[in-house]
Amino acid sequence: MTLPPEFSLIARHFRPLAGPGSLDLRDDAALLTPPPGKQLVLTADAMVAGVHFLPDDPPDQIGQKLLRVNLSDLAAKGATPLGYLMTVSTPQTTPDVWFAGFAAGLARDQITYGCTLLGGDTSSTPGPISLSLTIIGTVTPGLSVHRFGASAGDGIWVTGTIGDGALGLQVALGKLTDPTGFLLDRYRLPQPRVGLAIGGIASAGMDVSDGLVQDLGHMCRASGLAAEIEAELVPASDAARAAGPDWLTARLTGGDDYELLLAVPPAQETALRQAAATAGIPVTRIGTFHSGAPEVMVRGPGGKPLALDTGGWSHF
Amino acid sequence: MTLPPEFSLIARHFRPLAGPGSLDLRDDAALLTPPPGKQLVLTADAMVAGVHFLPDDPPDQIGQKLLRVNLSDLAAKGATPLGYLMTVSTPQTTPDVWFAGFAAGLARDQITYGCTLLGGDTSSTPGPISLSLTIIGTVTPGLSVHRFGASAGDGIWVTGTIGDGALGLQVALGKLTDPTGFLLDRYRLPQPRVGLAIGGIASAGMDVSDGLVQDLGHMCRASGLAAEIEAELVPASDAARAAGPDWLTARLTGGDDYELLLAVPPAQETALRQAAATAGIPVTRIGTFHSGAPEVMVRGPGGKPLALDTGGWSHF
Repeated sequence: MTLPPEFSLIARHFRPLAGPGSLDLRDDAALLTPPPGKQLVLTADAMVAGVHFLPDDPPDQIGQKLLRVNLSDLAAKGATPLGYLMTVSTPQTTPDVWFAGFAAGLARDQITYGCTLLGGDTSSTPGPISLSLTIIGTVTPGLSVHRFGASAGDGIWVTGTIGDGALGLQVALGKLTDPTGFLLDRYRLPQPRVGLAIGGIASAGMDVSDGLVQDLGHMCRASGLAAEIEAELVPASDAARAAGPDWLTARLTGGDDYELLLAVPPAQETALRQAAATAGIPVTRIGTFHSGAPEVMVRGPGGKPLALDTGGWSHF
Repeated sequence: MTLPPEFSLIARHFRPLAGPGSLDLRDDAALLTPPPGKQLVLTADAMVAGVHFLPDDPPDQIGQKLLRVNLSDLAAKGATPLGYLMTVSTPQTTPDVWFAGFAAGLARDQITYGCTLLGGDTSSTPGPISLSLTIIGTVTPGLSVHRFGASAGDGIWVTGTIGDGALGLQVALGKLTDPTGFLLDRYRLPQPRVGLAIGGIASAGMDVSDGLVQDLGHMCRASGLAAEIEAELVPASDAARAAGPDWLTARLTGGDDYELLLAVPPAQETALRQAAATAGIPVTRIGTFHSGAPEVMVRGPGGKPLALDTGGWSHF
């Protein structure tokens, strides 16, 4: 009996990614024994060609981005990656080499971030490539970090540099030059901050995926607080600085940073700096939470509030 | 600050579906404490308009089908549903009433089958509606059922009736009449066999989603056995019988049954019948596993092997 092409596709490209609990992708479901004494953190993201990535992006980077946007959510909750399930819907004309590249990107990142494929589904689609990934992580009970939980007086911190992803998209669209390729790389390949031990240190946390100002607004609403940040304190890469001040709004409101946004009580600042040094991840304080109606004030040079054109990126 | 439309969409339609661990869909991830002493069963399926359902199918039935195809996989492993994560990518022109119907279907089935929404993602797509659902179930260690594990001499059993979904698709395509609407309903609305306690009874199990003959072939390969079934023993609904003998091949090889296919040792037949009576789910023995090269023989009237045109349905 001849098997349909979907089975050889899975055998060639996805079985090598399968790990413990996956039953080698030979069953209809994975069987996972949860690590004793841990809670599970679960999150899912979809990515569609033309919305979340460009159809001619390199397939290995598409695979890596799919995994990394989910890893970034785990990192923001203080969770350790365990495994993932994935659905892959592709046009019938998608060449085998695309799947090979896509799987190679996933394989590299599985090693980098310590997780394996548990299961999933493949199908054709008459539309653009549509991907979905559900990731499962573990956390010690009581040490998970949420969007809510910040208090007035907590510092507002970010990891890495902000705005590179948004500028990288403009590079991809031909609207900005990028001599070193740094910005384009940051758009295509998020660097999830897995390994920063924020449990017990941050009072609230999330990743910056829809734009710093919008995501900080979410955190304000979740904690019932106002936020004030200084634009000059928001860390920028050399490449983002080189783009010039005209791109400030884009940096502060554009998406695809995949850095962490954290609320940290003053008494935990030293612990945060130590955790950051241990993980080799830069952290910067950019402002403070205050009592008040949930809103974000961004102060520019001289302390003047900036009027920003847009609150962030929506996938609608 | 105005929130993008994706947030009000989630609040209106998906937050009412959220259950324990979902953090009310207000965080980036769900936080789940695994039930002590249980293993987790995880599976994911994608559904794309034009491939897995018809674009003008009623949205509540699309939501139910998305959940039920995954519930069916859990049922085939002997697992009890716990919760699910979902990604929903829709054209920007999708009306609010579509989301309302889609969520209403899910809400009904959450009550029927006992599970709640844990998390997920919404986005737009320039293509057809693309859905993905990852479901999590629980099982007592040692009682999960797999595709592999059948032995020579085990009976081959199915639940319910076989072939209705495949004929229902032909009805939807206008190629078959369906005076009662039964077949179309079976195509649009699988009846996952959640609640049939097959753990410790079935030596192997899977759901019939790609066609009986193809799926039985998978089970043969997984267990290293040959299978022999009798076409006349394969249970057919009144509506499927009324379609006539020309549709026999379609019934045996078409997809979308979502019944269970089980290997059951002779010593467990009484236990299976008791479990089936308890759950109110009909079960029928249709053949036997034998030693030999993995292949499926279907005997027709008089014991003559049938030559079937096709091995089943592929999503490619």
